[in-house]
Amino acid sequence: MQDRKLPMSEPRPSHSEEPPEFDTAFRRELRDLMRWRRDVRHFRSDSVDRALVMACLEEACKGPSVGNSQPWRFVFVDTPDARAKVKANFESANADALASYHGEKAERYARLKLSGLDIAPVQIAVFAELDGAEGDGLGARTMPETKAYSVVAAIQCLWLLLRAEGLGLGWVSILEPERLSADLAAEPGWRFVGYLCIGWPTEAQERPELEREGWQARLPLEHFVKEV
Amino acid sequence: MQDRKLPMSEPRPSHSEEPPEFDTAFRRELRDLMRWRRDVRHFRSDSVDRALVMACLEEACKGPSVGNSQPWRFVFVDTPDARAKVKANFESANADALASYHGEKAERYARLKLSGLDIAPVQIAVFAELDGAEGDGLGARTMPETKAYSVVAAIQCLWLLLRAEGLGLGWVSILEPERLSADLAAEPGWRFVGYLCIGWPTEAQERPELEREGWQARLPLEHFVKEV
Repeated sequence: MQDRKLPMSEPRPSHSEEPPEFDTAFRRELRDLMRWRRDVRHFRSDSVDRALVMACLEEACKGPSVGNSQPWRFVFVDTPDARAKVKANFESANADALASYHGEKAERYARLKLSGLDIAPVQIAVFAELDGAEGDGLGARTMPETKAYSVVAAIQCLWLLLRAEGLGLGWVSILEPERLSADLAAEPGWRFVGYLCIGWPTEAQERPELEREGWQARLPLEHFVKEV
Repeated sequence: MQDRKLPMSEPRPSHSEEPPEFDTAFRRELRDLMRWRRDVRHFRSDSVDRALVMACLEEACKGPSVGNSQPWRFVFVDTPDARAKVKANFESANADALASYHGEKAERYARLKLSGLDIAPVQIAVFAELDGAEGDGLGARTMPETKAYSVVAAIQCLWLLLRAEGLGLGWVSILEPERLSADLAAEPGWRFVGYLCIGWPTEAQERPELEREGWQARLPLEHFVKEV
């Protein structure tokens, strides 16, 4: 399905080495990575080496997927025409969203910057292939949504790998999925999962932007856990 | 929503330190972590320190979520009664799945071990809170499924954090979601996302079990990428 030549990383040798052991220093850095991985909407305009993004993508696709179906599909959105369509989609969906809030909440929403579509040098529309033969339905019979979940898993790995390189990723979901799929000529059976803006962030942040902007604070772990 | 006393990690100090820089050695280890993170179904029976799991869970919940809604809900399934219900659910769904395959494929499916429910010392049912007030719908208006996607993101972080400790995680999706939600008394508005089996793996693996068992091979990155 590769339409044009993309810079791909070298094929890796098959790995027969011993399983790695991770020490406390690595684990501390991993926690830092997770804490400093934010949803980024403020990018510098500097270009990003496509080969670096492709190398991270290749690693991200090494993770598990339901039935090993590998349902992730990545469409690099590069042309001005395709980007203009995505931007118009966002502006329309964002105007609808703004209209759903009232009073002080609407004012606060209007002040938020909710995407880096205007500047992010790398933009990828991510889809889940729902009809693929790979995996032959294993694990997805009672929960077909696990195909999309597997794609989200790969996006998370990509997010972390990019952040370790100093790159930021912003996930844009204020989009009308059917329109986006049509505009980007997504194949039949593909479900739109998310639109990723990637670039060098203007600043690193440990606190979520929506917390800093007073939209939604973080809650303690106790709020999320129970036992049966 | 905490029903019984859980071992929680200490509250962390607020972070005012400088953003971390990740070097090439860390990035190499991160790639190893991702490559050696498998879906685990073969566990040793040794117990797992609950505090370690809770500490990983706390870090996993530091990641972004749609509108900062933090929709992740974790139900630790500890009692024999609750575990028996989950196991019966799996056995029923797995029998249905087996019946959907024929001939050699059915024989191959029957030979696969698809869960560690019989032995995993820690088991967590994970849900997405779809009706929560947190985040006030930001980012989820056109794509309400992003609530569940945010939960998947947290599960991925948990998976990596556990793997860095040497712990394995297996994601069980061969379950009937409505029945599981009822059996575990999930709250109204919660959608079942996945059932996690956690424990010490009998062996580390770099290749997916479904590839080693001849069910589904890995595909090259070219299969997943196009440009517009």
